[in-house]
Amino acid sequence: MTQGEITALKLDAAETISADTQRYFDICQEKLGLVPNVLKAYAFDDKKLRAFTDMYNDLMLAESTLSKLDREMIAVAVSSVNHCFYCLTAHGAAVRDLSGDPVLGEMMVMNYRVADLTAQQRAMLDFAVKLTEKPAEIVEGDRQALRDAGFSDRDIWDIASVAAFFNMTNRVAAATDMRPNHEYHSMAR
Amino acid sequence: MTQGEITALKLDAAETISADTQRYFDICQEKLGLVPNVLKAYAFDDKKLRAFTDMYNDLMLAESTLSKLDREMIAVAVSSVNHCFYCLTAHGAAVRDLSGDPVLGEMMVMNYRVADLTAQQRAMLDFAVKLTEKPAEIVEGDRQALRDAGFSDRDIWDIASVAAFFNMTNRVAAATDMRPNHEYHSMAR
Amino acid sequence: MTQGEITALKLDAAETISADTQRYFDICQEKLGLVPNVLKAYAFDDKKLRAFTDMYNDLMLAESTLSKLDREMIAVAVSSVNHCFYCLTAHGAAVRDLSGDPVLGEMMVMNYRVADLTAQQRAMLDFAVKLTEKPAEIVEGDRQALRDAGFSDRDIWDIASVAAFFNMTNRVAAATDMRPNHEYHSMAR
Amino acid sequence: MTQGEITALKLDAAETISADTQRYFDICQEKLGLVPNVLKAYAFDDKKLRAFTDMYNDLMLAESTLSKLDREMIAVAVSSVNHCFYCLTAHGAAVRDLSGDPVLGEMMVMNYRVADLTAQQRAMLDFAVKLTEKPAEIVEGDRQALRDAGFSDRDIWDIASVAAFFNMTNRVAAATDMRPNHEYHSMAR
Amino acid sequence: MTQGEITALKLDAAETISADTQRYFDICQEKLGLVPNVLKAYAFDDKKLRAFTDMYNDLMLAESTLSKLDREMIAVAVSSVNHCFYCLTAHGAAVRDLSGDPVLGEMMVMNYRVADLTAQQRAMLDFAVKLTEKPAEIVEGDRQALRDAGFSDRDIWDIASVAAFFNMTNRVAAATDMRPNHEYHSMAR
Amino acid sequence: MTQGEITALKLDAAETISADTQRYFDICQEKLGLVPNVLKAYAFDDKKLRAFTDMYNDLMLAESTLSKLDREMIAVAVSSVNHCFYCLTAHGAAVRDLSGDPVLGEMMVMNYRVADLTAQQRAMLDFAVKLTEKPAEIVEGDRQALRDAGFSDRDIWDIASVAAFFNMTNRVAAATDMRPNHEYHSMAR
Repeated sequence: MTQGEITALKLDAAETISADTQRYFDICQEKLGLVPNVLKAYAFDDKKLRAFTDMYNDLMLAESTLSKLDREMIAVAVSSVNHCFYCLTAHGAAVRDLSGDPVLGEMMVMNYRVADLTAQQRAMLDFAVKLTEKPAEIVEGDRQALRDAGFSDRDIWDIASVAAFFNMTNRVAAATDMRPNHEYHSMAR
Repeated sequence: MTQGEITALKLDAAETISADTQRYFDICQEKLGLVPNVLKAYAFDDKKLRAFTDMYNDLMLAESTLSKLDREMIAVAVSSVNHCFYCLTAHGAAVRDLSGDPVLGEMMVMNYRVADLTAQQRAMLDFAVKLTEKPAEIVEGDRQALRDAGFSDRDIWDIASVAAFFNMTNRVAAATDMRPNHEYHSMAR
Repeated sequence: MTQGEITALKLDAAETISADTQRYFDICQEKLGLVPNVLKAYAFDDKKLRAFTDMYNDLMLAESTLSKLDREMIAVAVSSVNHCFYCLTAHGAAVRDLSGDPVLGEMMVMNYRVADLTAQQRAMLDFAVKLTEKPAEIVEGDRQALRDAGFSDRDIWDIASVAAFFNMTNRVAAATDMRPNHEYHSMAR
Repeated sequence: MTQGEITALKLDAAETISADTQRYFDICQEKLGLVPNVLKAYAFDDKKLRAFTDMYNDLMLAESTLSKLDREMIAVAVSSVNHCFYCLTAHGAAVRDLSGDPVLGEMMVMNYRVADLTAQQRAMLDFAVKLTEKPAEIVEGDRQALRDAGFSDRDIWDIASVAAFFNMTNRVAAATDMRPNHEYHSMAR
Repeated sequence: MTQGEITALKLDAAETISADTQRYFDICQEKLGLVPNVLKAYAFDDKKLRAFTDMYNDLMLAESTLSKLDREMIAVAVSSVNHCFYCLTAHGAAVRDLSGDPVLGEMMVMNYRVADLTAQQRAMLDFAVKLTEKPAEIVEGDRQALRDAGFSDRDIWDIASVAAFFNMTNRVAAATDMRPNHEYHSMAR
Repeated sequence: MTQGEITALKLDAAETISADTQRYFDICQEKLGLVPNVLKAYAFDDKKLRAFTDMYNDLMLAESTLSKLDREMIAVAVSSVNHCFYCLTAHGAAVRDLSGDPVLGEMMVMNYRVADLTAQQRAMLDFAVKLTEKPAEIVEGDRQALRDAGFSDRDIWDIASVAAFFNMTNRVAAATDMRPNHEYHSMAR
């Protein structure tokens, strides 16, 4: 892959960006200090970009009893199973940033089992990782374990949805060799 | 799970459905003869439902050089790896319906390798299944195999996106024990 | 594989069938309405055919406290792990037929864990599937779980024998690309 | 398991042995110097014993272009994947005995890939092991590799049948904790 | 590999052996009746040989509350998972020799779960095998299971160190196709 | 685990450190700016510490045609498969430091396949990772692939030895829940 490219695919349309998309990117630049490469990768098609950002924003940023950090920890624990360079980099940075604990981010990337988590957080990540590795083996007992740890059924939906979403994005990134923004690596170390 | 329920989760909000959602469901009923249970499962939250249907409709129904049947075959081959009852049922029916070949639907559910496919279709499903099973091991050679089979880089994006999407929905369905509409089972046999 | 062939192997002897075998096939035709392709595949050698049918008939049809439906459910749950097109098709049809419940057949094919089974049936299938996936890890605790679910030691023998048998036939079918009779697909839907 | 028992199952009928079975056992004793424990395990039911021995004798002893040693090597290579104590012990002894090469028996038990085999034998065992580990992934290319190594389609049937048979017996042995005759351990060392 | 060679690698320096190494080999010959091939494989470099033997001797022969037989059983159970011909041969012989029970050695090679062990030994081997197969999934509960079985924390260190060491040597042997001394095969049968 | 502890094991002897060990630690402190926690973990027993450091120093620091960076990349790629928190942290820092390329260190931790390596480095890491995941499946073809990439047989020994060593240390760290020095996390970012 040539230096500076975002994916291994040549998608011609990617060269022109709609005004709407440009506005969205300007907001990202202002709020985050960068436009996440995943958005640029989707920019070749406005509808696909919008579908992706709508789902992402709802899952990761909308109201939920799961904290944003919880959701980012799920993202990274799932991406660790799938060895996804893009998502581990971008969301590893988010865990470091949201927690103010650089080592916690590293632990999520490397092996979430070593982190000093609450029993509830541990149950959440155990579920997310089992759902990633052996979805067919999830049974009522697994849902009950989350309820026993204090989660509501709505929380279970949210945990499942975030874990499932990163099983999607990990694979889009793997299939296209998507590269994260360089800035993430040094962020919140 | 009580007879007639769609998932194993109790999501109170699901009882009231917005006017927008009701309109959408009415259209489904008219066009498909049923409201897919996955939509009812998401109906507890309008934004989540909309994010899901926007992505689904773009991936599975929008313009693409991949035929709708190709996309449904990917959906089923991926869901077979993950043993997802919901998606195998709903999308197995779609393969039977779109192909007019009930046995093709069964083959996708059971083992896509036995189907008498073109070399191009076979390459497409081999990629989708490797991406499902071992996303971390996808390398440039895997993308090149698709190009050699006649796919453009844009096609690779679409193959990857559909395969990735079902890796998400398979897990939402597994996590919630989502049940498909009864009608799918007898459809297009 | 050319249309209409039963396996990917050319076994010359298969063209002539002994009088004994013809009689057996006539009985199948009369009783089942078809001669199962697996029998035609073995017909190139009378002794092999006889050895196969003797074992099959004893395991699947002879007296046992396991019902015929129980045995067919084991057959399909095992074949689902092994993704065996022949056995999933033929024995999926048998589950639909014996249970009068088409959806139960689909569940066994797709993921037996979603079926609404008795605790005893669930223990039976859990054992059969563990025996299929990790035979070396079966320990006394696994046998005890079957006893605790109400099975006798003789029942354990029968469960094990049926599960083991389909681990054989799944592999004969896979190795030869054996094709099931077309009729199974629409049977008992 | 009490010392001297053959399986972990208590099958009452096993105490009385029919005259036919006794005759068969007498022949074993005379020819082999022992009655293989697997036969005693099946002796609780004459029909099951007969079905087992008919299939075993056809596969392992009847005319075939595969030598008896070839068939025993397949048996052991398959049983090594499945870590089957009974079959590794009994058929490991057979490989040592038929080859006159004690180390060859050990290699089959431990890792067939270290043995100094002909390319044809290696292709045979590679197929048997793939069929054992990933039956769903066997494709025409795997059969062609056997043909390219000099095997006929009939040979492929025999290789597949022996490999498949031991995938059955390995699981009967695992499920019942079947114990091999003590004599095998020191045989042909 | 040519008959008589110890590994598949040509390491020129291996032809000359230092005086120190020769002395060490003389002691081996006297004490064991042979110079283990692994030592000859390392003999091309005195420092590497010394580092290997120092670690080996400390782990396998030094004072520990684990008996030498315990340590050899760990060695073989680990090597069975990894299908290591060299280590299964050499350390299988050691288990036969130290226990005076040839069948115990075979059981460790084939499937340690069939052996009639104390609960403590079983816990020890279960830990060693989990550490071999899924090191990332070892959690405090696994250590506690060893403590509950009567092991001290120091014992856990020793169990872990031996299991880990054979995960190293199994891979050196696999990578180089290392061959055990012929004498091991018939030893202590 | 209490804050500040290095492993989850209480090894009483660890409280007193020999004069020799103290001297060694002083050198580490001076040269590296820290005493690696793995050394403190082994400090409860001088002989074990010495055996470990002798092997480590020979493999990672002694003369070899493999550069120190090559060896550290192997260490991290292996540790990524095994999800070893300690080794990924300590040796990820070493890759960042030796290469002067912080992103390269992250890539080795997350998925070595995304790194822009020479064909020779890629062959080296592919071998190390196969040796880690499937040691029993290493065959002459795998060694030949290294020779074809320009490695000598002696290089193969070194690649294998380093990969094997980290398969050991990953497991000692996993078994004991060993914690890396905090300093590594921010080093060479």
